[in-house]
Amino acid sequence: LTEKRIAVDVMGGDHAPRVAIEGIAAALDEFPGIDRIVAVGHLQKIAHYLEAYDLTDHPRLTLVHAEEVVEMCEPSTMALRGKKKSSISVAAKLMKNGEIDAIFSAGHTGAAVAANTVITRTLPGVDRPAIAALLPGQNGHFILMDAGATIECKAENLAQFALMGETYARLVFGIDEPRIGLLSVGGEDSKGNDLTKDAFKILEKMPINFIGNVEGNSMFENIADVVVCDGFTGNAVLKTAEGMAKATVKWLKDVFSKNAFRMTGAMLARNAFRDLKEIGDAEECGGAPLLGINGVCVIGHGSSTAKSVCNGIRVASEMISFGANEKIISKVKQLKIQMSENG
Amino acid sequence: LTEKRIAVDVMGGDHAPRVAIEGIAAALDEFPGIDRIVAVGHLQKIAHYLEAYDLTDHPRLTLVHAEEVVEMCEPSTMALRGKKKSSISVAAKLMKNGEIDAIFSAGHTGAAVAANTVITRTLPGVDRPAIAALLPGQNGHFILMDAGATIECKAENLAQFALMGETYARLVFGIDEPRIGLLSVGGEDSKGNDLTKDAFKILEKMPINFIGNVEGNSMFENIADVVVCDGFTGNAVLKTAEGMAKATVKWLKDVFSKNAFRMTGAMLARNAFRDLKEIGDAEECGGAPLLGINGVCVIGHGSSTAKSVCNGIRVASEMISFGANEKIISKVKQLKIQMSENG
Repeated sequence: LTEKRIAVDVMGGDHAPRVAIEGIAAALDEFPGIDRIVAVGHLQKIAHYLEAYDLTDHPRLTLVHAEEVVEMCEPSTMALRGKKKSSISVAAKLMKNGEIDAIFSAGHTGAAVAANTVITRTLPGVDRPAIAALLPGQNGHFILMDAGATIECKAENLAQFALMGETYARLVFGIDEPRIGLLSVGGEDSKGNDLTKDAFKILEKMPINFIGNVEGNSMFENIADVVVCDGFTGNAVLKTAEGMAKATVKWLKDVFSKNAFRMTGAMLARNAFRDLKEIGDAEECGGAPLLGINGVCVIGHGSSTAKSVCNGIRVASEMISFGANEKIISKVKQLKIQMSENG
Repeated sequence: LTEKRIAVDVMGGDHAPRVAIEGIAAALDEFPGIDRIVAVGHLQKIAHYLEAYDLTDHPRLTLVHAEEVVEMCEPSTMALRGKKKSSISVAAKLMKNGEIDAIFSAGHTGAAVAANTVITRTLPGVDRPAIAALLPGQNGHFILMDAGATIECKAENLAQFALMGETYARLVFGIDEPRIGLLSVGGEDSKGNDLTKDAFKILEKMPINFIGNVEGNSMFENIADVVVCDGFTGNAVLKTAEGMAKATVKWLKDVFSKNAFRMTGAMLARNAFRDLKEIGDAEECGGAPLLGINGVCVIGHGSSTAKSVCNGIRVASEMISFGANEKIISKVKQLKIQMSENG
């Protein structure tokens, strides 16, 4: 059995450190399979919350002090260089040194990516990491990657993302021959920008189930299991989906509150709204794994609640069990051989 | 008063030519202010529909024959070079020669952009055109541009899009000091890819109400009136919003049909669903203008209905009245002077 030691960046997120500590307390309770949780943060600043959640002497909790925090407004590379004692950098060093097996952070995404790229390092052969986000389609979820780790991409990066996404879909979601799509501006092979046109040529030769270009609308019809794109586009798409979902809830409230008949209708159907909310629930999903690094890192939403932190820790624990990294290393190696053979 | 002669590419769109002819019939009825509609298409293929909608001898309708059609699957540049007699190329030539004042097309977007860029030409000083799409935010619509005309962009293109979008927001929506945002991966100035970082430096020096970076989610909170981005990202975002809206309607139907209580609720609230559908209704908006060309072109959705075609013709007619092009020329000229002064 694999050991499961998970570090939580308790200073990261809009409601840190309170929700992180509350989430850790819930995770220690709910997941006895986790050997150890390591809370990384400013010990004086979290002491009060540790006490509040009865965690001052928990047998499966370790505390590690980090003097600094990366603020959301800081440029990620600068933060990394200037703040070597930040909670996320300290956590990455613990993983580099083999003292932990996974990290969960709801803090500055760019800083988590930078710390894991520079300190933890990428897997052998992997040039850049990618965030694998789950988006809700009409008939279930699909994986979008990169959702924001590698903002400036080359075609080879996208090819590697496809392999990482394929491995993730197989191991974590049990999909046999995951359908891989390339996000573009039209379904036809000829459509796209320079990056996607180059990536298309690599992807169509790879030993994967590549279904060609997919579009922003058709991907919500679940025509692909994994949709590959650069991190800038992926981030814009992910946040657009989030923005639309919130706007829809607002419009629903507005239109239902217009008159008594509708309000009665809405009340009779109120459990339906709860169901609807759960479909795209960020709390349930907990966080998105950063794939391609020499370890496990799960990135939560900045607005994470205690429930999302708890679920994010669960996702990190699952990612340790699935052990995707060895498979990614071997697939990326094969891709390099194939690409050098093709000139 | 400006003359209003509008060409409709009747071969363009998934349901062409039927819906185009039906839309023209409705527009001739509803908008007496339009001097002339010019139906451009394969005359033998449309004869039957003209007869069906009583248009064979309409005093304000002219027919122009076009031998070819650009199919949706063709690469746009190839289509333009190989099909000089396509309906969209013939329409662009009519505009170039001053025989019409605007074009509406629900056909191949890339071909419409290419024909208007190469035949109609861009406005003096404008390097590349942009599609200005309306997206539904929590508290009303906002403008996203470019929604897919210029797939590969330079920073100067984005700066010009900002000026075109600003002019459009002022003239068409009557907004006094339109708030211009730059779509990026974080709200902070430092976030973005190479393109947006370069564009940010130009935009912050321009005499516009530039509010900085906006994100895919925050733009749906109506923090900006105009959101600027490259055409690849804009297209992905626009189609994601569309895909999410469709998926939401599907989920709503699923959750409401689960039991009798909910179904009763849904029935009591059924007018609310109609209202909701109207919020993001593509039929009502008709189409998105292609800004930056030496004329007026409104691009409809491939799946346009007769109602959308009619509304697209209305939008084309309004764009002629607003006369945005002279203002765009003068603003772009000032930008060039400013940029050469700044070195």
